[in-house]
Amino acid sequence: MIVALKPGVTQESREQLMDWLQNLGLHIHVSEGEYQTILGLVGDTTKVDMDLVASLDIVDSVKRVTEPFKCCNRKFHPEDTVVQVGDVKIGGGNFCVMAGPCSVESEEQIVAVAKAVKASGANMLRGGAFKPRTSPYDFAGLKAEGLELLKIARQETGLPIVTEIMSVVDLPLFEDVDVLQVGARNMQNFDLLRELGKLRKPILLKRGLANTLKELLMSAEYIMASGNEQVILCERGIRTFDDYTRNTLDLAAVPMLHELTHLPVIVDPSHATGINRLVAPMAMSATACNADGLIIEVHNDPIHALCDGAQSLRPEQFDVLMGKIREIRKVVTA
Amino acid sequence: MIVALKPGVTQESREQLMDWLQNLGLHIHVSEGEYQTILGLVGDTTKVDMDLVASLDIVDSVKRVTEPFKCCNRKFHPEDTVVQVGDVKIGGGNFCVMAGPCSVESEEQIVAVAKAVKASGANMLRGGAFKPRTSPYDFAGLKAEGLELLKIARQETGLPIVTEIMSVVDLPLFEDVDVLQVGARNMQNFDLLRELGKLRKPILLKRGLANTLKELLMSAEYIMASGNEQVILCERGIRTFDDYTRNTLDLAAVPMLHELTHLPVIVDPSHATGINRLVAPMAMSATACNADGLIIEVHNDPIHALCDGAQSLRPEQFDVLMGKIREIRKVVTA
Amino acid sequence: MIVALKPGVTQESREQLMDWLQNLGLHIHVSEGEYQTILGLVGDTTKVDMDLVASLDIVDSVKRVTEPFKCCNRKFHPEDTVVQVGDVKIGGGNFCVMAGPCSVESEEQIVAVAKAVKASGANMLRGGAFKPRTSPYDFAGLKAEGLELLKIARQETGLPIVTEIMSVVDLPLFEDVDVLQVGARNMQNFDLLRELGKLRKPILLKRGLANTLKELLMSAEYIMASGNEQVILCERGIRTFDDYTRNTLDLAAVPMLHELTHLPVIVDPSHATGINRLVAPMAMSATACNADGLIIEVHNDPIHALCDGAQSLRPEQFDVLMGKIREIRKVVTA
Amino acid sequence: MIVALKPGVTQESREQLMDWLQNLGLHIHVSEGEYQTILGLVGDTTKVDMDLVASLDIVDSVKRVTEPFKCCNRKFHPEDTVVQVGDVKIGGGNFCVMAGPCSVESEEQIVAVAKAVKASGANMLRGGAFKPRTSPYDFAGLKAEGLELLKIARQETGLPIVTEIMSVVDLPLFEDVDVLQVGARNMQNFDLLRELGKLRKPILLKRGLANTLKELLMSAEYIMASGNEQVILCERGIRTFDDYTRNTLDLAAVPMLHELTHLPVIVDPSHATGINRLVAPMAMSATACNADGLIIEVHNDPIHALCDGAQSLRPEQFDVLMGKIREIRKVVTA
Repeated sequence: MIVALKPGVTQESREQLMDWLQNLGLHIHVSEGEYQTILGLVGDTTKVDMDLVASLDIVDSVKRVTEPFKCCNRKFHPEDTVVQVGDVKIGGGNFCVMAGPCSVESEEQIVAVAKAVKASGANMLRGGAFKPRTSPYDFAGLKAEGLELLKIARQETGLPIVTEIMSVVDLPLFEDVDVLQVGARNMQNFDLLRELGKLRKPILLKRGLANTLKELLMSAEYIMASGNEQVILCERGIRTFDDYTRNTLDLAAVPMLHELTHLPVIVDPSHATGINRLVAPMAMSATACNADGLIIEVHNDPIHALCDGAQSLRPEQFDVLMGKIREIRKVVTA
Repeated sequence: MIVALKPGVTQESREQLMDWLQNLGLHIHVSEGEYQTILGLVGDTTKVDMDLVASLDIVDSVKRVTEPFKCCNRKFHPEDTVVQVGDVKIGGGNFCVMAGPCSVESEEQIVAVAKAVKASGANMLRGGAFKPRTSPYDFAGLKAEGLELLKIARQETGLPIVTEIMSVVDLPLFEDVDVLQVGARNMQNFDLLRELGKLRKPILLKRGLANTLKELLMSAEYIMASGNEQVILCERGIRTFDDYTRNTLDLAAVPMLHELTHLPVIVDPSHATGINRLVAPMAMSATACNADGLIIEVHNDPIHALCDGAQSLRPEQFDVLMGKIREIRKVVTA
Repeated sequence: MIVALKPGVTQESREQLMDWLQNLGLHIHVSEGEYQTILGLVGDTTKVDMDLVASLDIVDSVKRVTEPFKCCNRKFHPEDTVVQVGDVKIGGGNFCVMAGPCSVESEEQIVAVAKAVKASGANMLRGGAFKPRTSPYDFAGLKAEGLELLKIARQETGLPIVTEIMSVVDLPLFEDVDVLQVGARNMQNFDLLRELGKLRKPILLKRGLANTLKELLMSAEYIMASGNEQVILCERGIRTFDDYTRNTLDLAAVPMLHELTHLPVIVDPSHATGINRLVAPMAMSATACNADGLIIEVHNDPIHALCDGAQSLRPEQFDVLMGKIREIRKVVTA
Repeated sequence: MIVALKPGVTQESREQLMDWLQNLGLHIHVSEGEYQTILGLVGDTTKVDMDLVASLDIVDSVKRVTEPFKCCNRKFHPEDTVVQVGDVKIGGGNFCVMAGPCSVESEEQIVAVAKAVKASGANMLRGGAFKPRTSPYDFAGLKAEGLELLKIARQETGLPIVTEIMSVVDLPLFEDVDVLQVGARNMQNFDLLRELGKLRKPILLKRGLANTLKELLMSAEYIMASGNEQVILCERGIRTFDDYTRNTLDLAAVPMLHELTHLPVIVDPSHATGINRLVAPMAMSATACNADGLIIEVHNDPIHALCDGAQSLRPEQFDVLMGKIREIRKVVTA
């Protein structure tokens, strides 16, 4: 951490600050410039409150040069983490496609979609049982019943299941779920993250709408610091001024996260764009920049043909897409 | 709700869509233009999924003309809501200042700050017991013990207390707290909102970093739809590309929210800017655009004089500010 | 255009508004709802000032249902535009790679890079002669001399040249340039756009840092309305809260623009990310979502090996990338 | 400037980098930490390309600790700049209100508005002659004729005039204009800025929609580096995800700019919000945080009463507002 002092600081003030920093266990290198004195802090600076130091009268600016995350930092753990669920692997060269409907609606629906996506090559079944909704008047999912239907679909197809958990209160219901998903709106629900850290099963952590990559990694750190090292990160679009798509899919986050962390990184093109016509091109783009997997909404319900979900693919569209993705994956890994 | 159809839609497809919409209980007015046919939907459109309709092959675009919020909508409830805590009132012409330290640290600290802010004219005591922290390695507050210390400070000064709740699990601990605060990161923690709706005490709902005013009002709607009508809204800065301040304080939200809703609207200049030198000017600006109150961080701890919180005012700075605010308030209400 | 009136508007006010709108040549369909009356305006609404109507006391909200752009609108011109420069084609299935150094520095440099990128399969040579710089103290390019060096490189390799124009004053110098580039900061320099519309040569129009797709298309409209129909659009990243990359590359803009307009759309992964390690993955992603081309910075200067441009590829990296891109292009067009 | 090296860098690479930096005239202080070596660069670092250094294989990160702007930096020029136009002063305790219509339409209109705003206490007359419009089909102003009408209004009232210049080509027409305004879309039109630097009259420089405070100051630096020191900065809203107002007015920029620079800072509440009902509250807020002035749209045209500009005040509204502003100004300067 680098602390630049204001010009004309008294010797006394400077020493007072240095004493305080040294008491935090830090070593200080002083660089005296013509206009400015700079303190270089060496040691464990993760516990120093940057904002607090920056607010001091004698301080001009503070810059952090080391990342505050440890467990998920590739610097301290250079090999890729491979998350495993039964026979399915994600990361370290293993590509994984999770597919399924936005909401679990009925046994017939979830089993039919599960069979369809398996036939097209999906590795895991996704489906919402607990649904976060902006409006209190909207359908919030089948909840416990939805989880049971997912398990039936798993039994029928052998696909592991991934579904969203919204509250620590519901944890007991998720005991037999393979991968627990933390939604974008809960990325900084720290109580939930801490509880998930006590589990020993994979957590799919989605990036929040307005969260930086550092904050995403700090939330992964919450889970890992409690001992659960099986975290899958997911880019799903950020909120910007852009108004044609629901969110702005930030694909450069994929190679950037691969530099910063050893955790696998997947992409959700369905929620990012909110428009089914954009799902296939964005899924292909995500594959081309070496994402470790995809999570895609697929809907299959002939009696609701008219009101197909705005961001869901039909099984036949998903099947064509899977063919393209396999081809692009070959180019990327060649 | 307005649905614009694509050019060249067949009569059959159009009727299929109109049947489906009519089955949702809506009346449809058809406007046929030279290039485009437009359907005007009249009735309760809150349950129509706009994204879903927009995704249909035959639909060009969908626009909502009525707001999806009801309970907090000024159109259906023109008079200002006045939230009351003991003798303290907020809204409908009643201005309220909540002040206190970022974190509750000790009985000595919280009582001293409470006395100081009361002497300067604050109406309520704020203080964090449960603290949301980006990093799992940072101090997360004194929790239950912090709540007890707040109650002691209340007893000593008579100031009602406002403090943040982070999880439904902690609800029993907050039984004797006057105002429960929902932090920006939990603005869309819908489970928490629904539980708070079952209470009959004031909720201070902070706007999320990347949330629109409509989403803020929908979150208020979650609380109100469950029967709790005592909601105070709080603007505390949004996340933008701007990098000099921590967040960008969106003060135009204050008069805009006053148009849209009857709920009181306060401003938090401390968290919005993260820089103590900006707190006083932004508090004055918030008062000048007719906010119903302020929530301000004040710290008082001589032995930590050096590391005063980055965004906290000292009691003597707060006292000067309160004088200015009273003067501006006079101009605004003249 | 849809105008929703406020509840309780008098018959007289409503007729006054309708008279005024009808005088603008519009037909009006009135839908009377329980809570709200809605006016549907049919005709040429491009000249109606939405903000102005929205500001009227009796108006609740205004929504536009048709796009204000005409010349570049795919609805009125369904076939892809193919822009041609000598033998090089862009759009309508023709993929084009423009490559070259950030700045033209010397004859030796530009000729060497031109030969290298041609050998790897680039179709056009890019290079900056007039450089927009945030700081007045930075190098602003070789200007007229740089243009001459680009022409020498064109003569040596046969590659058409594309370079940025910053001011109408410089237009005479660009007479012999093949493609004129409008930079992101000038996307709404309307005087410049209007002058470029008088030319009959291709314009490469880059999206501004904070501009919507609609605004990008309106700027293309400026050029096309003056008679120049050879416009190439370029996505090059938008400004968001994200701080790891210089800008956020918005790749979903590519398929979205392909829906909205018949103009070719290319991507600039070098300026979007500002980090050379991210250029190859983002170039591959752009190809995978069916962009019509790429513009990539390539630098070749052994004596500056240490200070290779932050976002430039070395020729050997570019060569490997071109191989990958050809393979992905095969998958996309299969 | 601080350069953090990656772990495990060879002695040879490090010395190569240090040689290069020393050749740029910089002194280097080396701090060796357990994990990381940090180089502190002292001297004139304004010419070092941060992105370039950051892109080197051996470099982990680069941080700038000094601002790259000089002429407008308060560190080197602690006293407030006072810009003077005839008897009117801005900055250094002098508050200035510029008011007038969005567009100059006719002699009758501009003279009437000028007289009205003068009577209410405005110090300068604003009015658009050259109008930047997003659409090529919209009215672009009366141009040269509009400038003549402004001069007539100046003669009638004695109010100095401020109006926007969009192109260096038009400079001769502006010879007799008192203050030249650079619009938000031209904030980084560097050619224009450089030419304005050659003048010896005040320039009103508006912040671009997506520009940081540093970039605003660098654009001021372009003007000042050419010798023109009379620059007035103007905050007019930034582009964010927020969709209720046209832009998000960033009022914290006012006290922040006052820290960073000695130049006067004014606020434009009309363009920032785009909604006339929000102009008065935001003008009052801007005054309360110690802005040096305001620029406000006022319209007065009985035959267009119906279609009053969306963001303009009527003279009687402006008159009430001026009374409030004078009162708030008293509180701020007390």
